[in-house]
Amino acid sequence: MNHSGRMRALRKRMQEQGIESVLVTHLPDVRYLCGFTGSNAALAVTAKRAAMFTDGRYTSQAKEETKGAPIVIAKKSVLREACVWLEKSGAATAHFDPEQTTFAALNMMRDAVNKGKRRGFFQPLKNAIVPELRMLKDGDELLLIEEAALLGCNLFTLILPHIQAGVSESEIAADLEFFARSMGAEGMSFETIVAYGKRSSFPHGRATAAKLSGRGFVTLDFGVILNGYCSDMTRTVHMGKPGNPEQFAYEAVLEAQEAAVAAVKPGATCGEVDEAARSVLRKAKLDRYFTHSTGHGVGIEIHEPPRVGSEQKQVLAPGMVITIEPGVYIEGKFGIRIEDMIAVTASGGKILTPAPKAMIQL
Amino acid sequence: MNHSGRMRALRKRMQEQGIESVLVTHLPDVRYLCGFTGSNAALAVTAKRAAMFTDGRYTSQAKEETKGAPIVIAKKSVLREACVWLEKSGAATAHFDPEQTTFAALNMMRDAVNKGKRRGFFQPLKNAIVPELRMLKDGDELLLIEEAALLGCNLFTLILPHIQAGVSESEIAADLEFFARSMGAEGMSFETIVAYGKRSSFPHGRATAAKLSGRGFVTLDFGVILNGYCSDMTRTVHMGKPGNPEQFAYEAVLEAQEAAVAAVKPGATCGEVDEAARSVLRKAKLDRYFTHSTGHGVGIEIHEPPRVGSEQKQVLAPGMVITIEPGVYIEGKFGIRIEDMIAVTASGGKILTPAPKAMIQL
Repeated sequence: MNHSGRMRALRKRMQEQGIESVLVTHLPDVRYLCGFTGSNAALAVTAKRAAMFTDGRYTSQAKEETKGAPIVIAKKSVLREACVWLEKSGAATAHFDPEQTTFAALNMMRDAVNKGKRRGFFQPLKNAIVPELRMLKDGDELLLIEEAALLGCNLFTLILPHIQAGVSESEIAADLEFFARSMGAEGMSFETIVAYGKRSSFPHGRATAAKLSGRGFVTLDFGVILNGYCSDMTRTVHMGKPGNPEQFAYEAVLEAQEAAVAAVKPGATCGEVDEAARSVLRKAKLDRYFTHSTGHGVGIEIHEPPRVGSEQKQVLAPGMVITIEPGVYIEGKFGIRIEDMIAVTASGGKILTPAPKAMIQL
Repeated sequence: MNHSGRMRALRKRMQEQGIESVLVTHLPDVRYLCGFTGSNAALAVTAKRAAMFTDGRYTSQAKEETKGAPIVIAKKSVLREACVWLEKSGAATAHFDPEQTTFAALNMMRDAVNKGKRRGFFQPLKNAIVPELRMLKDGDELLLIEEAALLGCNLFTLILPHIQAGVSESEIAADLEFFARSMGAEGMSFETIVAYGKRSSFPHGRATAAKLSGRGFVTLDFGVILNGYCSDMTRTVHMGKPGNPEQFAYEAVLEAQEAAVAAVKPGATCGEVDEAARSVLRKAKLDRYFTHSTGHGVGIEIHEPPRVGSEQKQVLAPGMVITIEPGVYIEGKFGIRIEDMIAVTASGGKILTPAPKAMIQL
């Protein structure tokens, strides 16, 4: 991983925006910039210097992982010591991420510096610099994301024979997660969704003890974490022969998903991609059942910028990785969602989860 | 679950503290108060009324789960609509949890209300009312926590035969997580730690592809989520016959753990419980290798109040559930941690994870 390149990119943005120093406390941002993966950390960065603060539990791990910043093992509060370091660095101000800093943390930060500095020293960043950097994946990251996505994709093939009448949603989830672990995943990137029958109309139906029996959709939405990067995909299969409304809705969701995938290209806005899916469902008179956004960025975190939603102005650029996951959810009846991960390339979009999307009947 | 009792307890505290209304945005707090488990929610509460805000993905699920508050499906921002509702409720102020409210969220909240109210309408809570309520588990919760803890505990018995030379840390984690799922767990409460040999000196050594070979400690720290409640336990076993330093350190950690467990009783402070463990390790001249707190509360979240650490003044009371988990970590050599979950009872502490603690040699 090119951590030094990322620190350089951060400093370039800081300079362009007239920012003397930043305090990075969001753990995925810390990991992105310097490689440290522990659960307690703060990274302080000025134009010339940096320091990575963690606690005594992570002494060995920090040495092994951290690049581009000396490590400080804080005796008491990681946050407090990082603030004191920033004050002593000579910077007149320190910027923080307002999306990742609580009211209580800001009070503690202000309390950590000298009285004279309490008002103006800490300033909210106007631009989310690190999330903006993270949105454009570098080559190393794209390789890891492709690997994670492919592992996730292979799980779908492996789990298909296990989707049978008499088996419970959570048994399917257990098998899927076991395969993931066996294939090297560090864990799942979110709580595995296996939702059968009427429960498929819950967009976020976590797996329960309910058993599959008779006809109906089964929605599987799952992701792995592999080498620190997340995958995310959804397929909806049908137990037995679907009725006409089920068949019609499935075709519409698939068409919507493919339309949105086709709309992915550099220069397109996220809102345009969302609209590509939504307009297909509108024509099918199913848009009122599509109750969420079309997708989201994915990388170190399972949800990260950009948001692929209605009227979102963010312009797609090569290196972004997003999901495309339209769905329809008809309360008390059924639900369908189809999701791929897509990397934005120089010429369009590359599907990272190449599993079949035509309806599978089991 | 007695959600109405919890809402009453919240309103009683509000009244005692002269608080007209609260905005609850931390999802475990929302779940605790009204039962809703979705990933996007805000709960607004006044002396007489309440409303639970979520988005269109959760229409069905919210109806199924939510108790004690009417549901509002927000068209755009859940947070913004909850703020407008609070403003219209007639309350002169609305309190928020400063530990759970970001600088950006507070700006959005202020922006959502009428200009005249922007300065003073939102106030930080001085006391963390909901976390304080959650610290004292009610009877329903204690039963669920005991079940989760016992499931976790049984995993240790099941996994022991799988800890063998030639097997990797992550294969052990995979088996353990599969057993957990098979026994009904919704998932793991944190990333499973399996750390062999020198890696056992990483207190938070997530499972890797490294294979067990020859002699050395294996630390297993794992927890399940069952019916929405977390378990947490650690055992450290030894492959082959330990050397004298390993044996000595293990005995010391075990003695420290048992001393801290024995110190748990109503009226004791968390600092006293921590010191009970720390003083045993001090006598063994191992205290400098005990680089973290002795424990933490556990319930809906894997880490919640109280913190069982050095000099913590919080007094233990019946209904609290904490972990006791001292350890020693000698860089480049080995590490040992032993952890139980303990419920504070009227007369002392009850161990919820009754697995053997005497050294197991495999």
